[in-house]
Amino acid sequence: MNISNKLIWIVLFVSVVVLMSFLKDRRDKNKKIVFFGDSITQMGVNPGGYITDIKEMLAQQGITNYDLVGAGIGGNKVYDLYLRMPADVIAQAPDIVVIYVGVNDVWHKSSFGTGTDADKFEKFYRAIIKELQANNIKVMLVTPAVIGEKNDYSNQQDGDLNKYSQIIRDIAKDLSLPICDLHSIFHIYEVEHNASNVDKGILTTDGVHLNEAGNRLVAEEMWKVLKTIQ
Amino acid sequence: MNISNKLIWIVLFVSVVVLMSFLKDRRDKNKKIVFFGDSITQMGVNPGGYITDIKEMLAQQGITNYDLVGAGIGGNKVYDLYLRMPADVIAQAPDIVVIYVGVNDVWHKSSFGTGTDADKFEKFYRAIIKELQANNIKVMLVTPAVIGEKNDYSNQQDGDLNKYSQIIRDIAKDLSLPICDLHSIFHIYEVEHNASNVDKGILTTDGVHLNEAGNRLVAEEMWKVLKTIQ
Amino acid sequence: MNISNKLIWIVLFVSVVVLMSFLKDRRDKNKKIVFFGDSITQMGVNPGGYITDIKEMLAQQGITNYDLVGAGIGGNKVYDLYLRMPADVIAQAPDIVVIYVGVNDVWHKSSFGTGTDADKFEKFYRAIIKELQANNIKVMLVTPAVIGEKNDYSNQQDGDLNKYSQIIRDIAKDLSLPICDLHSIFHIYEVEHNASNVDKGILTTDGVHLNEAGNRLVAEEMWKVLKTIQ
Amino acid sequence: MNISNKLIWIVLFVSVVVLMSFLKDRRDKNKKIVFFGDSITQMGVNPGGYITDIKEMLAQQGITNYDLVGAGIGGNKVYDLYLRMPADVIAQAPDIVVIYVGVNDVWHKSSFGTGTDADKFEKFYRAIIKELQANNIKVMLVTPAVIGEKNDYSNQQDGDLNKYSQIIRDIAKDLSLPICDLHSIFHIYEVEHNASNVDKGILTTDGVHLNEAGNRLVAEEMWKVLKTIQ
Repeated sequence: MNISNKLIWIVLFVSVVVLMSFLKDRRDKNKKIVFFGDSITQMGVNPGGYITDIKEMLAQQGITNYDLVGAGIGGNKVYDLYLRMPADVIAQAPDIVVIYVGVNDVWHKSSFGTGTDADKFEKFYRAIIKELQANNIKVMLVTPAVIGEKNDYSNQQDGDLNKYSQIIRDIAKDLSLPICDLHSIFHIYEVEHNASNVDKGILTTDGVHLNEAGNRLVAEEMWKVLKTIQ
Repeated sequence: MNISNKLIWIVLFVSVVVLMSFLKDRRDKNKKIVFFGDSITQMGVNPGGYITDIKEMLAQQGITNYDLVGAGIGGNKVYDLYLRMPADVIAQAPDIVVIYVGVNDVWHKSSFGTGTDADKFEKFYRAIIKELQANNIKVMLVTPAVIGEKNDYSNQQDGDLNKYSQIIRDIAKDLSLPICDLHSIFHIYEVEHNASNVDKGILTTDGVHLNEAGNRLVAEEMWKVLKTIQ
Repeated sequence: MNISNKLIWIVLFVSVVVLMSFLKDRRDKNKKIVFFGDSITQMGVNPGGYITDIKEMLAQQGITNYDLVGAGIGGNKVYDLYLRMPADVIAQAPDIVVIYVGVNDVWHKSSFGTGTDADKFEKFYRAIIKELQANNIKVMLVTPAVIGEKNDYSNQQDGDLNKYSQIIRDIAKDLSLPICDLHSIFHIYEVEHNASNVDKGILTTDGVHLNEAGNRLVAEEMWKVLKTIQ
Repeated sequence: MNISNKLIWIVLFVSVVVLMSFLKDRRDKNKKIVFFGDSITQMGVNPGGYITDIKEMLAQQGITNYDLVGAGIGGNKVYDLYLRMPADVIAQAPDIVVIYVGVNDVWHKSSFGTGTDADKFEKFYRAIIKELQANNIKVMLVTPAVIGEKNDYSNQQDGDLNKYSQIIRDIAKDLSLPICDLHSIFHIYEVEHNASNVDKGILTTDGVHLNEAGNRLVAEEMWKVLKTIQ
């Protein structure tokens, strides 16, 4: 092997190393966010879904260092999240996990008789946070938005949904965690935009699942909090 | 029989007739009010109960032309009232009936799975009113006060209880009936007097059944409406 | 008018009278049966539904003196039947009413929290019978067939459905009324024909609503009892 | 120190060592069994409770190498056991754990709307077994006995309780674990001893919690299986 051949090999090797380090660097700089929740999050990755909306918002703003991943399964309650967290979340090694759960914990009380006791909701919610933090994952909390869009506290589950939202607010305060309080945000929105006090069609299609306006609102409000997480 | 004897008998007879007519008159002038409801009304006739409180209020004000009768049975829902109305209310030939029901229609959804559908609640409620009015009985409506005393709409059944209260308010409006809106009255009271946002002990012993202050408040508010009914 | 003309008129008049009396007689001899129930009965008038099946059975046997009418509404519980009985049943002046209800009284406990208490189920059931009999209508009772087709008493509502069936059996015995005990008939059928113990697909499409075999079985078993009612 | 003093000290030292090793040996030979469950097990350690009964049975038979420990808490469902297992069971380093749960998973569906979904019941049940076995603890399964003592499958929860018992039987079969099938044992007993088909008072005080005969039956049946576990 002559010198020029050697040189070529050296240049090639250095190039590869530099390229790899660059790629690694790029990968390292990207924050991976897993959205962990129920059917609302499962639908969030669809076209027009809230996760897709955030992606498009970031693209428009030229923000490229985020990877957004949906991990929602329809019907999930807090202990469903707990049970599938190792495989569905931790195995993905995210930087941030958005926990967005609570609707079914309340709703299933009347629709199946299998809702979640308030004290057990808190226990499993805290167990999820603890396990994520033990894996050096940052956590953002979200309160459940609505079950019915009436704005005068006359949806059947309003009291209970508010109670479970308060549990999440208290955990956020207790553990100094960022929170996107959709339950309050939606209520304020409904008071302003739901003059005829209908129970669906303003931010949801059916009282629970987000329509276009609902997905956009959730995307905007979530991003406000997400961007503050270092 | 001489004339004086005859006279004595005549005087006696006339006296008795006058006395009887007077008594009849007094009895006729008395308005009979039947309080028709659940355990809250069943306890209302106890010492310190709201019906007893109204009686004492009237006595203090020298009002004597009312007969107050309790017809409450623990656990009753609207269709229990409907089923026992002929025997327990109409047979008593009251002038006024106070319908005070709704807590169990909501509560039994989660405690037994046998609450009352909202549309059926309205149907039986209207059927009770119709039957009472067909018997020339005046009707006063009452909204269910509370299930839990938290004042920030975070008691489990707040949404549903508000919904059923609204059904009663709508019926009252539709049929131009007097209403004592305890659900609103209690909420306002709780905002003012329940600073620490406890779920019982302000107006109730257990979140549902009235304590001394609760009975007094109900007595005062009911009388405000009752005295307007001619 | 001569005699022959007169005769023609007389013959014509007599003919019409005879014809009318014959038609009236035919109409009078027809027994009107109203099937009063929930979605199972609502579907019963469809092609392949159990009421249609009975009609076809009767046609094949040359039995023409029955009019079969469906009066089923999806989701109905015993007190729904009670509320709509005057308009939907008594107004039709039937000879016989088949009361076929109970599935939703049990099922709605877990699916909506608004099932019917066992004691209230019996009260409304008896009230329906009393009102029908007061209108000289004969009554046939039917026990609710199944919620889930497993044959080892492991369908979620098996215990409760059996309990409510027993209430109906007891009423039938107490009032000496004809009964078609579908709950027992279906259980025996499932033990014989559901070897793999599946929860639907043998006599139902979904565990509750009848498939072709289910409709035929119900038609045959109902007719066995109906034909005995004079 | 002279020789005899020295000797005394040596003898003393050896004695203590022998005694300690003997005690350790005795302790080591004792099998520690933790009974892990709900209110039935919480009451099991009372005088006349089933755990106390087993202790007395063993004493009468001169069996001394077992330590029986109760770890029951009223109202517990399968995920309550899961959540408190580390502190309440594993920390005690038992040889055998008896898992006796299921009544509240079914019952709370109708009494609070917070029963346990069948599939989640199995997941948490298996997670408990897995964790115990990972700690070298032997496991014995128990099916929930009764909610109501009627013997003709007409107790409200009979179907569901049977379904959850079958889940436990299937897990036992799948993992080759010893099982005490109280659900079957109680049914057979009720058929034989509950001729008047009452819903409590034969083996329970209230349809769920064991009376004297019930505790004795559970003690005998559990011991039959426990003594086979090496």
